[in-house]
Amino acid sequence: MELYAVIMAGGVGARFWPRSKARKPKQLIRIFGDNTMIQDTVSRLDGLVKLENIFVVTNRIQKPRIIEQLPQLPRKNIIDEPFGKNTAACIGLSAVIVESMKKDAVILTLAADHLIKDIPGFHKTMMRAAKFAHKTKGLVTIGINPTRPETGYGYIQIDENHFDQDIHKVINFAEKPNLSTARRFISSGDFLWNSGMFIWRADTILSEIQKHMEDLYEGLEVLRENINQKDFSETLTKVYGQLKSISIDYGVMEKSENVYLTKGDFDWSDVGSWETVYQLSEHDDEGNSKIGDVYTLKTANSYVFSPKKFTAVIGVHNLIVINTEDSLLICNRKNSQDVKSVVDSLKMNNRKELL
Amino acid sequence: MELYAVIMAGGVGARFWPRSKARKPKQLIRIFGDNTMIQDTVSRLDGLVKLENIFVVTNRIQKPRIIEQLPQLPRKNIIDEPFGKNTAACIGLSAVIVESMKKDAVILTLAADHLIKDIPGFHKTMMRAAKFAHKTKGLVTIGINPTRPETGYGYIQIDENHFDQDIHKVINFAEKPNLSTARRFISSGDFLWNSGMFIWRADTILSEIQKHMEDLYEGLEVLRENINQKDFSETLTKVYGQLKSISIDYGVMEKSENVYLTKGDFDWSDVGSWETVYQLSEHDDEGNSKIGDVYTLKTANSYVFSPKKFTAVIGVHNLIVINTEDSLLICNRKNSQDVKSVVDSLKMNNRKELL
Repeated sequence: MELYAVIMAGGVGARFWPRSKARKPKQLIRIFGDNTMIQDTVSRLDGLVKLENIFVVTNRIQKPRIIEQLPQLPRKNIIDEPFGKNTAACIGLSAVIVESMKKDAVILTLAADHLIKDIPGFHKTMMRAAKFAHKTKGLVTIGINPTRPETGYGYIQIDENHFDQDIHKVINFAEKPNLSTARRFISSGDFLWNSGMFIWRADTILSEIQKHMEDLYEGLEVLRENINQKDFSETLTKVYGQLKSISIDYGVMEKSENVYLTKGDFDWSDVGSWETVYQLSEHDDEGNSKIGDVYTLKTANSYVFSPKKFTAVIGVHNLIVINTEDSLLICNRKNSQDVKSVVDSLKMNNRKELL
Repeated sequence: MELYAVIMAGGVGARFWPRSKARKPKQLIRIFGDNTMIQDTVSRLDGLVKLENIFVVTNRIQKPRIIEQLPQLPRKNIIDEPFGKNTAACIGLSAVIVESMKKDAVILTLAADHLIKDIPGFHKTMMRAAKFAHKTKGLVTIGINPTRPETGYGYIQIDENHFDQDIHKVINFAEKPNLSTARRFISSGDFLWNSGMFIWRADTILSEIQKHMEDLYEGLEVLRENINQKDFSETLTKVYGQLKSISIDYGVMEKSENVYLTKGDFDWSDVGSWETVYQLSEHDDEGNSKIGDVYTLKTANSYVFSPKKFTAVIGVHNLIVINTEDSLLICNRKNSQDVKSVVDSLKMNNRKELL
């Protein structure tokens, strides 16, 4: 069994404006510590997947910085999609590429912007999922034991009866729920957070796409036939132009009868907003996280990032402050999902220099 | 009767950090509209006091900008004190200078950082006070009818019986009160806000200083004897070095039996903090004042100043945001008096570049 990894790194991270920009989104900035999230994602595979088997799928805007941040990867392993077409296309493309190298390769499909600290636990879970996927040709998801009724995540419902060594049959996928539904999920005990990580064989996911997403499969067949041609890039643009934007969850996972889940033996966060960053950061006695040249007075439970300019904060609670060279964000922690609105407004006003 | 004006402009305006800096304090910045507060203070005297009779007392750090902002004044009328020694010394010095030109000159002692919009009302009040001071040799204060139990102002208690044409005898001065005392003052009806403006003859205030502040008077006599000497500046430094820092309120007004008050026939604010600036600014439908490149969402009753850099504010209420080129202040409106603490902290850490 040979392991491959495909890291999906096309997101723009609008909720992390103003630190996250089109050219330098969430996964490419240092939010925690000295490394970027994509660097952490690759390091996390050390001892599990060989460097030449690690692929990153991104877009043309982000590619240069990804090459810069991941010099250890073969340059050809950084694949840029001509258009963003959601996860189904991205997964199909990478499966075609990996399959051309090894038909029964097991692919770990990962996100570039998840925070996981327990690396042995991560490896253990991945190996369990990979062995199962290799043997049974199943589609394996990683479920996270929910610790709160989070409305920002999708959920997966499982059959609690064991199938095989901590692998469960999946009964149902649920989109991001409202709060009361999330509470019901939590108390039912058979719902887990959908981590968005998938483990399958290259040939398995391609045959599942063939079954459930005929249009995409036709496109992938064209790519497969041209994979070693000089003009592959033009073919890719032509094929991608015609694809629909569909997520793998909606396109395959919710339809297939062949879906399994194993519980992640590790801490996990998708770091979805500044609020999550606040929660995952270290705090002082007042519950503040201060990064840079920051003075606070009568201020508590706030996240203040101001590396270049002196910032004084007085008499506030539960505030996010992101003071970058070109923009300033001040946001109630409760409203951290609304940061996207700023990005939308800047787009509408064509203020590209701030995006 | 000839009118002179002495504008006291030595304050550092720590409560207006980070817009107010040692070299460019509150009175020298554009807080409302196109003019600085000291420019407005001088324009306000147009038609009341001749330009050559207007003096500004400041310090050596601020002098260059004051000359720059008030090119219409004779340069010799911008007087710099070698040390800040509170208002008694400043008033004594200017009285000696004015007395040397005209013994019975009436001096309007004014602050450089008050906001007064009703100029005819201001002139009417000043003329009434000046005529009274010229005739009776009284010390006249301007009281403002209090509209709220403000704890940031001093108060003056008057004898409600008329003395002469809207001039009242002063019974007592009260320092900045606490809230319950301020409420009592307001309901009593015979307490007014102390505007800090004074009207008196040059010879009157000097003889009152002689009566109540012997040390200061001795110094002033030395100055008076040397006023036309070449080395006056050295004499001033020598004399000032020995003076105590005492306010005119404490040194003379609270002790003299010769103190009167006339009520100001005009709006007045001493613009004491960012909170006052918020209140005096125009607001949009959400109660926000936005100056510069500012986006707000779910935000109300806030003052956001960001002329150079894009600022987005989400989900907050009652916030002051001052985003300048070298510093950022974020302050609850309730805490605007605490801005001084930031300045104290910067001083303690010797961060002169931010002061």
